Amino acid sequence: MKKIAMAVLCVLYGPASVNAAEGMWTPNNLPTAELKEKYQFNPDPKWVTHAQKAAVRLAGGCSGSFVSPAGLVLTNHHCVNSCVQQLSTADHDFIKSGFYAKKPEDEIKCPEIELNRLDTITDVTARVKKATEGKNGEDYSKAEKAVKSDIEKECVGNEKETTRCDVVDLYHGGVYDVYKYHRYQDVRLVFAPELAIAFFGGDPDNFNFPRYDLDMGMLRAYENNKPAKVVDYFPFSKNGAEAGELTMTVGNPGGTDRQLTVSELETTRDVDLIPRLFLLSELRGVLTQFRSQGTEQSRIAQHDIFGIENSFKALKGRLQALQDPEVFNLKQKQETELRDYVKASPERQAKYGAAWDEIAKAQTTYRNIETPLKYIEYGRGFSSDYFSDARLLVRGAEERTKPNPERLREFTESKLPSVTQQLFSTAPIYPELEKVKLTFALTKLRENLGVDNPIVKSVLGKESPAVLAEKLISGTKLGDPAVRKALWEGGADAIAKSDDPFIQLVKQIDPQARAIRKQYENQVESVIDKNSELIAAARFEKLGTSVYPDATFTQRFSFGEVKGWNEKGTEIKPFTEIKGAFARATGFEPFALPASWLTAKDKLNLDQRFDLVSTNDIIGGNSGSPLINRKAELVGLVFDGNIQSLGGNYWFDERVNRTVSVHSGAILEALQKVYNADRVVKELKDAKAN
Amino acid sequence: MKKIAMAVLCVLYGPASVNAAEGMWTPNNLPTAELKEKYQFNPDPKWVTHAQKAAVRLAGGCSGSFVSPAGLVLTNHHCVNSCVQQLSTADHDFIKSGFYAKKPEDEIKCPEIELNRLDTITDVTARVKKATEGKNGEDYSKAEKAVKSDIEKECVGNEKETTRCDVVDLYHGGVYDVYKYHRYQDVRLVFAPELAIAFFGGDPDNFNFPRYDLDMGMLRAYENNKPAKVVDYFPFSKNGAEAGELTMTVGNPGGTDRQLTVSELETTRDVDLIPRLFLLSELRGVLTQFRSQGTEQSRIAQHDIFGIENSFKALKGRLQALQDPEVFNLKQKQETELRDYVKASPERQAKYGAAWDEIAKAQTTYRNIETPLKYIEYGRGFSSDYFSDARLLVRGAEERTKPNPERLREFTESKLPSVTQQLFSTAPIYPELEKVKLTFALTKLRENLGVDNPIVKSVLGKESPAVLAEKLISGTKLGDPAVRKALWEGGADAIAKSDDPFIQLVKQIDPQARAIRKQYENQVESVIDKNSELIAAARFEKLGTSVYPDATFTQRFSFGEVKGWNEKGTEIKPFTEIKGAFARATGFEPFALPASWLTAKDKLNLDQRFDLVSTNDIIGGNSGSPLINRKAELVGLVFDGNIQSLGGNYWFDERVNRTVSVHSGAILEALQKVYNADRVVKELKDAKAN
Repeated sequence: MKKIAMAVLCVLYGPASVNAAEGMWTPNNLPTAELKEKYQFNPDPKWVTHAQKAAVRLAGGCSGSFVSPAGLVLTNHHCVNSCVQQLSTADHDFIKSGFYAKKPEDEIKCPEIELNRLDTITDVTARVKKATEGKNGEDYSKAEKAVKSDIEKECVGNEKETTRCDVVDLYHGGVYDVYKYHRYQDVRLVFAPELAIAFFGGDPDNFNFPRYDLDMGMLRAYENNKPAKVVDYFPFSKNGAEAGELTMTVGNPGGTDRQLTVSELETTRDVDLIPRLFLLSELRGVLTQFRSQGTEQSRIAQHDIFGIENSFKALKGRLQALQDPEVFNLKQKQETELRDYVKASPERQAKYGAAWDEIAKAQTTYRNIETPLKYIEYGRGFSSDYFSDARLLVRGAEERTKPNPERLREFTESKLPSVTQQLFSTAPIYPELEKVKLTFALTKLRENLGVDNPIVKSVLGKESPAVLAEKLISGTKLGDPAVRKALWEGGADAIAKSDDPFIQLVKQIDPQARAIRKQYENQVESVIDKNSELIAAARFEKLGTSVYPDATFTQRFSFGEVKGWNEKGTEIKPFTEIKGAFARATGFEPFALPASWLTAKDKLNLDQRFDLVSTNDIIGGNSGSPLINRKAELVGLVFDGNIQSLGGNYWFDERVNRTVSVHSGAILEALQKVYNADRVVKELKDAKAN
Repeated sequence: MKKIAMAVLCVLYGPASVNAAEGMWTPNNLPTAELKEKYQFNPDPKWVTHAQKAAVRLAGGCSGSFVSPAGLVLTNHHCVNSCVQQLSTADHDFIKSGFYAKKPEDEIKCPEIELNRLDTITDVTARVKKATEGKNGEDYSKAEKAVKSDIEKECVGNEKETTRCDVVDLYHGGVYDVYKYHRYQDVRLVFAPELAIAFFGGDPDNFNFPRYDLDMGMLRAYENNKPAKVVDYFPFSKNGAEAGELTMTVGNPGGTDRQLTVSELETTRDVDLIPRLFLLSELRGVLTQFRSQGTEQSRIAQHDIFGIENSFKALKGRLQALQDPEVFNLKQKQETELRDYVKASPERQAKYGAAWDEIAKAQTTYRNIETPLKYIEYGRGFSSDYFSDARLLVRGAEERTKPNPERLREFTESKLPSVTQQLFSTAPIYPELEKVKLTFALTKLRENLGVDNPIVKSVLGKESPAVLAEKLISGTKLGDPAVRKALWEGGADAIAKSDDPFIQLVKQIDPQARAIRKQYENQVESVIDKNSELIAAARFEKLGTSVYPDATFTQRFSFGEVKGWNEKGTEIKPFTEIKGAFARATGFEPFALPASWLTAKDKLNLDQRFDLVSTNDIIGGNSGSPLINRKAELVGLVFDGNIQSLGGNYWFDERVNRTVSVHSGAILEALQKVYNADRVVKELKDAKAN
């Protein structure tokens, strides 16, 4: 359940009638009245700030939390999977064997993980709105970009290495806040179990429950080459939470589309989801067969296959929600009610009335340009690490010569540390795997844009996708981080002189890629932004402000309780126990328990609760979130939602939408008895509430 | 463009307002008035019977025609592709090199091709309707099956080997006809060019135009070990047809859904098309990667990959049509008009009024059972030649002990020759490829029915899909036609004694498979059949009978003219020339011309017309149809539709829907100058109109 970046991700706010468990609340706007009424829970500001700062964000698309004063971080295995794979080699496959740093000095740096701790939130709504006032299209787009870049740069100040600032659009332009984070880029791997138990049941059991997964991984934040000292962290609760008990998540839901207009939902369904699912399916087939060709192929393709299967299942669930007449009718009804409310007053109608049709028109424009946008500008047609790095290098060289507010947004000053972390990463790139992926991508480029498309012709010339991929990859030097570093530091001059085939390729298509992006930003995105803001304002007028904004991969609290559900007449209990894993095991992947567990079976408390479900409202990006009780103790580790939670992108159905977590007691039990991770267990047990 | 079998294929009749080119007309009900008015063409019954008998059907899902009195048949390369592959070996790859029987004795038997020549059509409507009158559900289903089996058996009489009879539902139960065919099962391969020119442009150019394909193949019907003598055949026209000239096709469109109800179209879109496209995409990826593993893998996977890519593109086109609000609104409007017409009379309302809702209810039932139906009964979860053969053997043994009318329909007396042709086929089965496909199928079985489904559990036990596939395939003897023959002839006793793992597997799941089929037939199919018949009757009342029925893979005439179209502002010309193929060639598949063409380039008339488009109304199944002029000369060989023709499953859009054919002159030019196929050229030139 990773954060899934959608092609069109618009941020709007949630429905007015708040269900007990529904809602992804910003830390500065919790539903205090409901909490008091339903759970007799009345957290004071200190409690909230403590929880806010004990939680962390993994910038790549996950959540986590500090669990000791020495910067120990708990998150999911599938959130550290890429690091585990990057640290593995053909001889040491930590995905298979697991990883445990027996001594502090064994903790190894993850090449691409960045942690963010949210320190402050500042309202900048007035400043942003003033900058875009009365503007349209390109002017609107430029002004919005410029003011955000300025705010972020000012917020970061001189603390570039340790501070990250992002302007966040909440309630789609109802509120603009700047989120200031403490940034950790020296993050080291402490512990990861074998994939076989982290992801026991594999794809077949993914998004299902009952479940028997130890989907955990442990990292440590470092500063100045020493474990980071942190004041706020969550101590472990060995006993966890009981059925019916209040549970909270503090995490970073990646994005929801609960308040898109009907025309946007139709676009999502027909134009974004379905073609993407076709692509994922086919690439899944390619890589599944590639994996079967040998042990090393299996190892190097593992992370990609996990990501693809996970995305496929998640997006298929979303598609099914959008095919459900019940969901679509609800969306239609909500839209009609709001439009009727607007129409009822001539003043409101003049101000907001046209917004829905303007957004619908922008959808038509989008449908005409989305294929080249995705294949050329978003790089779907060139999918390869070499290409991504070459694009960063070529554009980075050009963009850095421009004033900050005029740059492409991913190259503004405050974003550069993330760019260089990727570029200078020591993570291995596997040419054999890249060839397979690039051949596939180029084939789909030709298939989707057409043989006679000018860009396709200029890229492929008289070559086949496979031959071109082979040439590019055998000719490139970009697999070497030192080469990438030299090109980055050499800037425009180094890029101009480079004869690397990927640098050449990116330069060749860049004019068209930038043109299509500009068209999208000016004719689609800015229209949607402006008019969604109008709809948001109309909704504020109608409903007031006691609502939550659509998710934005920023920190949110959710409130729920431990609870099973009724699955077509069958009661699903909220807990599983460790013994269930042994009963379900077959000896074959993905139902093969690792040797460590088979060996430890006699020592284990087989009745220890393993996984659990609760009614918390989460979504992709929440992976790794702490599940805490009212004492701010960690009772679980969020790692999944059930299959019904996938429709949660569009609406929250409290009857069946469930969050799936690893029980805190199971984590302790496994660390102690299966992994003998005494050093870590001691650290966790010593970490008392402070 | 092969015949595509849809999960729910209902036969209803076409719209009332007949466009000039719209319509797939049965030979006994041609639109004579329109033909006279628009084309001043007035074919007499002799002309029609001649064309009817000169055309042939390939029972596996294609069309073709006799082109000489010695039983020479012209069809598409993609219709004989499976035979070409079956006759190939690792050392002689006729797909790559092409095939030409220089001498008559070099013509080789195709293991699985059956040709049908339509001889007579007899109306049996009254008899069928009487048999089902007043019946419902299982009774209806049984009665319908029984009367059809009886009629077919009587029609075949004692000429089992050479006669085939099928009861055909036209206008969904408006008319029942029995079609009597002369059946040829000794069919030999005469000529096939290299795949590289037959399918030049490959998947990227498939369903596109301009086009440069020699998608032809030649067969010969044999009787008593000698070339069959036929009276009716189409002589070649060297000059072909000019722009604007009347062209006709005589072929076997596989199926259209132009008169499905809206609820059926929704089911098709959400439940049949989309999941099937996911499956095709993934299997495409698997086999594409498999193909890249070596020359032999490439050779043995070729036919499957072609079929998958072709289906994917065709079904994706259909999905896009169903996602088009214009198409869906039209369907909704037509349905509303007919329902309003029914409502306007209390008598009609009482008779027909409930039909639409009954069909909608059956859709709900279908949605609840379609996954096990497809995976268990239709075999999607066991996809493998061994499984199909085992199923035929196990069920065949049981069914043959029953009276004819009580058998599963594929085992009635008149169907047995097709069953034994498949079972006794000498076509090779490749265990390596079967393992890949079966592993995939078993994985999808588990994924789609769920790990905890009882059938999944009983099939997989504690094994993984890959391990089970390996065990089944290394243990089976069904790859040997003699073993299959012995099991067939040994009947129930031989099956009971067999320890072949595929026979065991089929027996293990057969009770559940039959149960789900029964549920489908009694609760879905019979409800749809009965109520579609009512809707058909209502439409007859409203519109009369001068309409055409939805396609049923039986012979239809279509009438159109040679004509390009306007593609978003660009005029597409109706012809391409041979020189265009040389201009488009890159040297890499699928744009690599074969050596034979490169060598012959100087001899070829490069201005010879190569492919052409016309406004004829065709669909999958029409592949290989003759395109003839009013003199019943062959002016082209239908092999494809353009991309816009894919929506033709639901409606005919004369503005852009086009049939793509190979020009008759190009066929002669290539046979003469590229392939030096003098014997065949002489036979074609000698075949004058008789």
